[in-house]
Formats: sequence, structure tokens, C-alpha cells
Amino acid sequence: MRLIVGVDIGGTNVVVGTLAEDGSAIYGLRKERTRTNDGPDAVVQQIAAMVEQSLEATGTALAREDLDVVGVGIGSPGPLDTKQGIVLMTPNLGWRDFPLRDRVSEAVGLPATLDNDANCAIFGEWWRGGARGARVVVGLTIGTGIGGGIVLDGRVFHGASDIAGEIGHMSIDSTGRRCKCGNYGCLEAYASGTAIAARAIEGLEAGQESGLPERVNGNLGTITAQVVYDAAHDGDEYALEVIQDTAHFLGTGVANLINIFNPEIVVICGGVTAAGERLFGPLRKEVARRAFKPAVEVCRIVPGTLPGTAGVHGAVAAFKVQSWGEA
Amino acid sequence: MRLIVGVDIGGTNVVVGTLAEDGSAIYGLRKERTRTNDGPDAVVQQIAAMVEQSLEATGTALAREDLDVVGVGIGSPGPLDTKQGIVLMTPNLGWRDFPLRDRVSEAVGLPATLDNDANCAIFGEWWRGGARGARVVVGLTIGTGIGGGIVLDGRVFHGASDIAGEIGHMSIDSTGRRCKCGNYGCLEAYASGTAIAARAIEGLEAGQESGLPERVNGNLGTITAQVVYDAAHDGDEYALEVIQDTAHFLGTGVANLINIFNPEIVVICGGVTAAGERLFGPLRKEVARRAFKPAVEVCRIVPGTLPGTAGVHGAVAAFKVQSWGEA
Repeated sequence: MRLIVGVDIGGTNVVVGTLAEDGSAIYGLRKERTRTNDGPDAVVQQIAAMVEQSLEATGTALAREDLDVVGVGIGSPGPLDTKQGIVLMTPNLGWRDFPLRDRVSEAVGLPATLDNDANCAIFGEWWRGGARGARVVVGLTIGTGIGGGIVLDGRVFHGASDIAGEIGHMSIDSTGRRCKCGNYGCLEAYASGTAIAARAIEGLEAGQESGLPERVNGNLGTITAQVVYDAAHDGDEYALEVIQDTAHFLGTGVANLINIFNPEIVVICGGVTAAGERLFGPLRKEVARRAFKPAVEVCRIVPGTLPGTAGVHGAVAAFKVQSWGEA
Repeated sequence: MRLIVGVDIGGTNVVVGTLAEDGSAIYGLRKERTRTNDGPDAVVQQIAAMVEQSLEATGTALAREDLDVVGVGIGSPGPLDTKQGIVLMTPNLGWRDFPLRDRVSEAVGLPATLDNDANCAIFGEWWRGGARGARVVVGLTIGTGIGGGIVLDGRVFHGASDIAGEIGHMSIDSTGRRCKCGNYGCLEAYASGTAIAARAIEGLEAGQESGLPERVNGNLGTITAQVVYDAAHDGDEYALEVIQDTAHFLGTGVANLINIFNPEIVVICGGVTAAGERLFGPLRKEVARRAFKPAVEVCRIVPGTLPGTAGVHGAVAAFKVQSWGEA
């Protein structure tokens, strides 16, 4: 059995796992805080050490000493140049024009490939998760921000210069909130985990009654999206409203994607899936009321099924495509 | 030289032209009011007669009696089933589940293919117009409504069920104007020719000073987008403002498309191109201020260069793709 290592670099964590070539099994999963402060070379060393540990654990799990490891697929925040394997810029990590692919390849002594982290997450869901086998897939990864990925005919769609899929920066209100990206009314500014928490806090500060403050000992600034989901789970009316509003914003964005792409599946990954049917129910209703009916009828809106490892799966699938033409 | 006939069916007009197989020349261009009131069979007869006239004129132009005519490409409003050649529904024409492709094919005695009218217009611009040769093209046709088309690697992108590309029904204001399609805040509700005229009239009714009323003898209801462009051309401040607002709305939509598709070219077709640089200048500025910089840098925003015949060109290109795999 041939193995491929997947590396998913985030602003917060690095996740590494070793996959069977066909994605049927994952071994030696490792997760560490990204050594952001020490610069890109330190992160390369961190990745090399994590890959070594992952392979060791894989050897133990398979009870084999010699593993047939083919290469390393890397997913990283961008924008980046997938062909050259270069990270052009990552605001979160502070890198610029860094040849990440070749540095990692040298450090681990294996061939490597590079693709965008959100692309990888959605590609992973297409390969082995909730969007498996669909010909036209659009996906969102909702966490601190909102990333996106587009998978057409089993390939990540990269656009003209590897920037395609920035779905979180689709404006759903041309005169709306200013987004960090400079645009106004971006989906990310309303429906990211950060935005969900911010909207919840705004309402509380304006006097909304809710059990939320009690959950954080009155420390409103520490409310996270997860705290909102937990309160909604326990029946807090206001928290449910915040999720309902999220469905409105997200539904506008997803309806746009359905009218534009006519996808078979819209897959939604990340922390927001913790809201479960409390979000997905109203979301599907909002989409049905907005998007073209025949397009809605052929599209399933599903949560990702690979929480925590979608990016690793997709980085491996992207390695296969870049190396051999298909995943 | 082999010839292919292109048929572009619109709610207002049917346009027919005979093209050299490589798109290098167009002959026997015919344009007639669509016989909408008499039902789909009457339109099929109309098309057959126009094809015959077009071929006659082509024979005269080429001074030949025997033409090598390979087939007929048809562009029609949708939604439709391109594989089966069926128009599923056209609100403007009132058709439902009509086997347009085969009816036309029988009536003219030639093989025929069917694709969406807006797709055809953008595909025509890719094949022989303003978006020629680009690998990733997104296009808008702005007239009564706003249609869209996506061309990837020389093929129209159809999505899962031939509905992809409904760019006019991307919401740019989640709580905005209700659109005929049922959604709120659709781009079409702000930036179509109809919406441009409606916005101009609203302002006048609210007391804006302008030379516009004089141009229509005080009959505000007869103001069209073209009247607004003409007034702007002559320096009317208010008309210029209306166009500036159009650039704001359209710029929001185009910036979204650039963040999502990272295209090489965004091509804009239809009557709105008559506004020229008065629209395209502010539009490019608005896009630059909203979309991701590296994506803006690789993207040209251009008017279509095949006014009146983009659809005919694209219908022929679509015939080639459906028949032989490429245009």
C-alpha cells in the first residue's frame, strides 16, 4: 500500500496525517499550534518533524518498518502560486513570496505539492467526505473567516492565477459593513464564526435578553460562535435568533452560488457545522426561497463529514492530481 | 468552405446568420420580431423561413449555388435541457417542455443543437469577440434583464443541469428590492436596462433636476436606458449620476465574480455598452476598490465587440462543441 502525507497549515494549527493512497485510511494524525512567531523556516522545520512523527506512528499502526511513502501534499493559506509552489502572501502568517513547497520537500526528502487551504478542505470533502463523487461542487469553510473552494469534474478550479474560490468575499450588501479585505458587505463580515459572535454581542449590548452573558460570567467579549450554538442547543431564544440571522446571510450567499454554478452539492465545513440542523434547516429554507427552483431541486446542501481532517485529505488529493492528473 | 447557421431567439427578436465554419465571416444576417403570440410552432416556421432566406443571401454573397451547410446552432431563453434539446420553460415566450431543437432540425432538414441564449452570447464573445482566446471568461448580457455566461477552457460551463450562469440573479443586497425571480436584491433589479431607466425615473419623480424630462416631452414613463446614456453623453449631470450608481451596483457584482472565478476577462454585452467609458471607467474603479488585488490585476473588463451578433456567433460555436467536441 502506497502512502501520501497531507499537511494542512492554518493560522492557528498545523495538522498532519498519513493517508492510504486511495484515502481509505488515515494514520498518525498530528496537530500542533503553528509556530507563527518564528517565521516560515521555523514552520518548515515544524512540519518536517510532524511528518516524521506521523510516519513513525503510521509504521507502528501498520506494524511495518518500511513504508512506501510517495510524497507530501501541502495546503496553505494564500494567495499562492500552485505551479511554482510559492506562498505569495499570507496576512495571518506574515509570509511573502516564500517557496514553501520546495522547502518542505527538501526538509522531508519527498516530492511535495502546494494548494490553497480552503481549496484543499473542499477537495477533501469531494474526495472522501460529504461531497463525494459530485461533478459540480461549491464549498465554504466557515471558521474565523470564510474560505471557499470549487471542484469541477474532480479538479479544484483555480481560475486564471490560483485565486478563484474567494467566496467569503462575495458582497451580499453593496453598501454594507466594511470587510478587512477592503470590500463592503462581504459574506465573511456577517456569517463567519467571528461575525456570528460579534452580531450576538452587539445585540446583547443593545439590551437583548438572553442567557448568553451568564455563560461567560458577564464577560461579553469572550462570547464565541460555539457559545452561541451551545446556548441555542439549550433553547436560548436570542441565540436561536442569531443563528436564524446567520441562515439569512448564508442563505443569500449560497443562493447566489446555486444560481451561478448550478452545483450538485454545496458543502459547508468548519466550526459552524456545530450549529447542526438549527442552522441547516433555516439555511435550506432561505436558499429555496431565493435561488432558481430547478437549480435548488438538483442541489444538496450538506455539512462536511471530515471535521479536522478535510484539509489533510484534500492536500493528499491535490498531490495526486498535480502528480498524476487525477485524485 | 463549410457553413453553419446561427439562430438567436429572444423575447423581442429572432436573429439568424450564416457563418463560415471558423467564424471568420458572417453572411445573410436576418432580424425579425419574434412571433411570440402565435406559439412555439409559429416561431419554428419563422426560424425555418429565416434560415432559408439567410442561406439564399449567403449563396448570392458567395456567388455559389451549392452551399456546404453543416447544421444549425440555436440559442434560446431557458431554462432548457441542452442534451435533449428541450426548452423547459421560458417566461418571456410562454413555452413549456418544447422540443425546439428537433422541431427546427426537421423544419430546415439539418442537424441542430440548442443552448441558452446568454451562454451563447458570451460564448460568441469568447470565440470571435472581446473575450477571444481567454481560458477563464465570465460575461454579462445587460438588456431588459441581465443574463450571464461562463466559459472555461473553451467550453460553456453548464453546471449540473444547464442552469449555471444566472449571474443577473446574484443578490448584492440581501434585504434589497424584490426581483421578479423571487429573490431580493438581485443585480438585475439594479443594473439591467430596465432598472437603469426605473432608477432614473424614480429620482426625477423625487424632484431631481435634469434635462431628461424634456427629451421625452415630459412623458417620464418613456425614459429608457438609452435616453439616459444620450443625456449623459450630452453632459446631463443627473444622467451621469444614474450611470455612476450603475457602476456601483455592477461593480459590486463584477467584483464578486472576480473573487469567485479569478477570470482573465469579464465581458459585458448588450445595450448598456452604449454608455461606453462613462460606465466602464467608474465600473473598473469600483471593481478595483472591492475585489482582491491580485485577481483584479490579471482581469480585463471589456465591452463585447459583437453587438447584435454575439448570440448568433455563440450558437454556431456551441453547435461545433456539441457536434465535434470543440469550437
